[in-house]
Amino acid sequence: MTTALLGLGQMGDGIARTLISRGHALTVWNRTAARALPLASEGARVTPTVAEAVAHADVVLSVLADDAAVTSVVEGTNGLLATMARHAIHVSMSTISVALARKLDAAHASVAQGFISAPLFGRPAAAASGQVLIVAAGPDDQILKVRPVLEAAGRALVVIGKAPEQANALKLAGNFMIAAMIETLGEAIAFARRHEIEPATLLETVNGGLFKSPVYDTYGSIIAERRYSPPGFKLPLGLKDIRLVLQAADAAGVSMPLASLVHDRLLAAQGRGKGALDWSAFGQLSLEDAGLE
Amino acid sequence: MTTALLGLGQMGDGIARTLISRGHALTVWNRTAARALPLASEGARVTPTVAEAVAHADVVLSVLADDAAVTSVVEGTNGLLATMARHAIHVSMSTISVALARKLDAAHASVAQGFISAPLFGRPAAAASGQVLIVAAGPDDQILKVRPVLEAAGRALVVIGKAPEQANALKLAGNFMIAAMIETLGEAIAFARRHEIEPATLLETVNGGLFKSPVYDTYGSIIAERRYSPPGFKLPLGLKDIRLVLQAADAAGVSMPLASLVHDRLLAAQGRGKGALDWSAFGQLSLEDAGLE
Amino acid sequence: MTTALLGLGQMGDGIARTLISRGHALTVWNRTAARALPLASEGARVTPTVAEAVAHADVVLSVLADDAAVTSVVEGTNGLLATMARHAIHVSMSTISVALARKLDAAHASVAQGFISAPLFGRPAAAASGQVLIVAAGPDDQILKVRPVLEAAGRALVVIGKAPEQANALKLAGNFMIAAMIETLGEAIAFARRHEIEPATLLETVNGGLFKSPVYDTYGSIIAERRYSPPGFKLPLGLKDIRLVLQAADAAGVSMPLASLVHDRLLAAQGRGKGALDWSAFGQLSLEDAGLE
Amino acid sequence: MTTALLGLGQMGDGIARTLISRGHALTVWNRTAARALPLASEGARVTPTVAEAVAHADVVLSVLADDAAVTSVVEGTNGLLATMARHAIHVSMSTISVALARKLDAAHASVAQGFISAPLFGRPAAAASGQVLIVAAGPDDQILKVRPVLEAAGRALVVIGKAPEQANALKLAGNFMIAAMIETLGEAIAFARRHEIEPATLLETVNGGLFKSPVYDTYGSIIAERRYSPPGFKLPLGLKDIRLVLQAADAAGVSMPLASLVHDRLLAAQGRGKGALDWSAFGQLSLEDAGLE
Repeated sequence: MTTALLGLGQMGDGIARTLISRGHALTVWNRTAARALPLASEGARVTPTVAEAVAHADVVLSVLADDAAVTSVVEGTNGLLATMARHAIHVSMSTISVALARKLDAAHASVAQGFISAPLFGRPAAAASGQVLIVAAGPDDQILKVRPVLEAAGRALVVIGKAPEQANALKLAGNFMIAAMIETLGEAIAFARRHEIEPATLLETVNGGLFKSPVYDTYGSIIAERRYSPPGFKLPLGLKDIRLVLQAADAAGVSMPLASLVHDRLLAAQGRGKGALDWSAFGQLSLEDAGLE
Repeated sequence: MTTALLGLGQMGDGIARTLISRGHALTVWNRTAARALPLASEGARVTPTVAEAVAHADVVLSVLADDAAVTSVVEGTNGLLATMARHAIHVSMSTISVALARKLDAAHASVAQGFISAPLFGRPAAAASGQVLIVAAGPDDQILKVRPVLEAAGRALVVIGKAPEQANALKLAGNFMIAAMIETLGEAIAFARRHEIEPATLLETVNGGLFKSPVYDTYGSIIAERRYSPPGFKLPLGLKDIRLVLQAADAAGVSMPLASLVHDRLLAAQGRGKGALDWSAFGQLSLEDAGLE
Repeated sequence: MTTALLGLGQMGDGIARTLISRGHALTVWNRTAARALPLASEGARVTPTVAEAVAHADVVLSVLADDAAVTSVVEGTNGLLATMARHAIHVSMSTISVALARKLDAAHASVAQGFISAPLFGRPAAAASGQVLIVAAGPDDQILKVRPVLEAAGRALVVIGKAPEQANALKLAGNFMIAAMIETLGEAIAFARRHEIEPATLLETVNGGLFKSPVYDTYGSIIAERRYSPPGFKLPLGLKDIRLVLQAADAAGVSMPLASLVHDRLLAAQGRGKGALDWSAFGQLSLEDAGLE
Repeated sequence: MTTALLGLGQMGDGIARTLISRGHALTVWNRTAARALPLASEGARVTPTVAEAVAHADVVLSVLADDAAVTSVVEGTNGLLATMARHAIHVSMSTISVALARKLDAAHASVAQGFISAPLFGRPAAAASGQVLIVAAGPDDQILKVRPVLEAAGRALVVIGKAPEQANALKLAGNFMIAAMIETLGEAIAFARRHEIEPATLLETVNGGLFKSPVYDTYGSIIAERRYSPPGFKLPLGLKDIRLVLQAADAAGVSMPLASLVHDRLLAAQGRGKGALDWSAFGQLSLEDAGLE
């Protein structure tokens, strides 16, 4: 199987390294070519254009920042629709909108290409070490074809439905749940500190004794210790994801007041100068609003 | 050490049984005497009044419903302040307000009695099987005296500070975190279902692959399967706890919009006829508001 | 001056009648031709296509439902960009997005046509009786040309800026303020009723004695008397407007928790079966959530 | 009729001056005696104790800061219950809790005294110029007796029910409606400014053309011009009032998410250093969160 990977940001680069280290031949492309060079020395074939990258590929993985970036590699005379082989499969691993996934599914089908959504759960370090969780959705026969690549790209592959956009919806639901947890932790830590309880004590007791969740542990200690920089996942990207949650919820007729709350918090965090920090920095607002910093 | 236990509701009864089964002699009292009888056959000494229950006790555990119930056993001519021995210690295990804990601390000290807060994390079944987590706060010397009883009453004892009300604050923070999680799950499940994703699939993927928390598992499946009855923890009690969170937050100058949101949800759930169900039934509102039920 | 008017829904029909009654010759078009017939007997020239309606017009007023409807009459071989004369001016009176107004402004300029935004404040009865408030924005010279028509179309014309999208932003801000007032009234009426105070008493006292606003009066009595049907302004249209507020706010970096709240309320009202009612029916949720209905 | 007035803060002093200027003999008392002296020269009889002030009064007006201040003049051996004549009437004009009004009503009745709630709508300048609106509730016969005094104390007296606490509930509903309007204005102004629309333009257009409310005008210009100091009504007092709204709503089973939102905003404004400003300063948070200041 010939595999191409488009997009070598923090996540894409990590996925590429994992696949190479697990024995997969890979052709890679990145908008900013310089970012691709280190992968050449790892054995990847680096191409200057999308068209060259995907010309002979059976599977094309895209790991890009947002809807605009994905659209820009799909459409146009040099885009995937025009340049991928018939029956080749585009696997979108980016966190994109439910609406775009639906649109890409139809567009690829109209030119006899396949489309699968397979977004990633994990931060950059997990991508590089092969520890991301991959949640995929698409038709059974297409999933069957891309399964070897996806299983090699992370620590686990979970297939959750036959319509690609379901994987995007689930990814968005997951990010919403993490954002809700960040808000929860921010408020709880502010409340604890105002009662002279150390954040670490709160976390050890409530998470250690009750929730027992590594995600609470990770984000709780980031907020408690204000380790928002360097960012693992930048605030504007988190804001984008929660925006996509709300857009999909609106389109589906789902009222989500907690998603609205974290969206407003992310916007306010950006307005209050935290745009270059990790997205969990919006948890800091609760501390500031309590007069604690 | 002579130990008395006041209050044999679901939680108090469970704690009493655990202590007896672990070899502690116990004098018990309950407002409705009939509820105490089964414990007599387990070996507890049952007394008709608070005064008789605590007359010879070194340690008095109270496990009651709310501030009013605790106040009613503490004040008055037959209350703890008037009838407990000097140097005996009142251990309040109820989920009461931070303000009342402060007041009780001062009141007991004024008559040379001790006071410790040691609220419980766990549902009734956990109390009966000795699996609750006990979070205590109070002066070191008093903690030392009551430690054997508290260690026997659950699966673990965590001491988090020297001021009793800190344990109450931490308990309230914990319940807030669970309520926030319930709202999160309700919204996420409504969002998933509107995208044709089964709640079980959402939970297996996001909690199984990411959060890995038994609390998400428990509440997620309750909401997914609508198992709100019989209630493990009744909605009005949950509403009371979040009310206490907001009162303490207000007094401490902490703005908690997510706590406000779950408070409003609990009130609305009550207004929409769910007052006799488990408190997690407020997670159902998201499904109803999405037109799903 | 030759004037065309596109769109004869409740608002467009009212504007057309007002202009005719005030002596303006009018060519009209509506997607569903039957709706245009009654205006023919009032003296309007009715055309079957957009192209015919605008071919000789100096000013083209569009009064349509949403972004999609406006886009559909602007783009394509029979759309305004292709068929309006050079230097003719498109006056968009619909409540459309800030983003679309920006896009239309650029598109019309690129073919030497003019573009002005002039959204309406008022309900259908006000449109028909010439009582709407018109808020316009656009370049001075273009405003000068369309002023006679716009002054005749309502009770007042207010020009608030030189960039057309500013008028759209102001219209959205106004609708947000009305939606916020509806939520306020819903909660206040539920609170009053639970204290045995009649809604009419609340309104007479607080609005009559303090706010003194006809808008509070109108919406307060609608909610107090549950006169949500027939709708003056349907709930899905109100939901659309608040969606546009939040989209523009997000793009502009403005956190608006109250706008988010009313958006979630509108979605929930729709999910709870109120989609065919007047948009103020979301004020009813407060009463239902208080167990009052 | 002999009238006493207790409490000479900004509002009480204004009410006293209005009554004197309209020909009412007045005995006054204030905790800080110095504040009463200027009224002596206006003709008021100044007394050093509550007991002396009310000994011969038929009507006792109290205009105090909060529940605690009112309780402190009512209870105890020198309080109103002990020192007012039988059949004398206590008229509470303070913004106090619904719960306290109920309690005072019962307490006065138990010693054959009357009790009426008659809270004020208006800022200090309105009190001094006789322009406040007085909203009263109580039994008909008692209202009849105090009517001459209350009609002289402001610009209008509205009687809204027979149970005193209804007037307090209505006053709280009114303050909630003003707070909701402040939040509305803050968000709308931030939204407008981010679209290059001057706040004055927004207000002139939307309030001038639509709402037509003097309250929007007053608060809108305060926020637009940031005239938060000197405060007309201090932020902690506004926070107290919204706290009372939420307490009464909770007790009455009314879910009020917008009241919760403004409560959280007021707390955050206090935490962010605005505690000495006018309560409308919480409208400023929207501007700060949008990066505008």
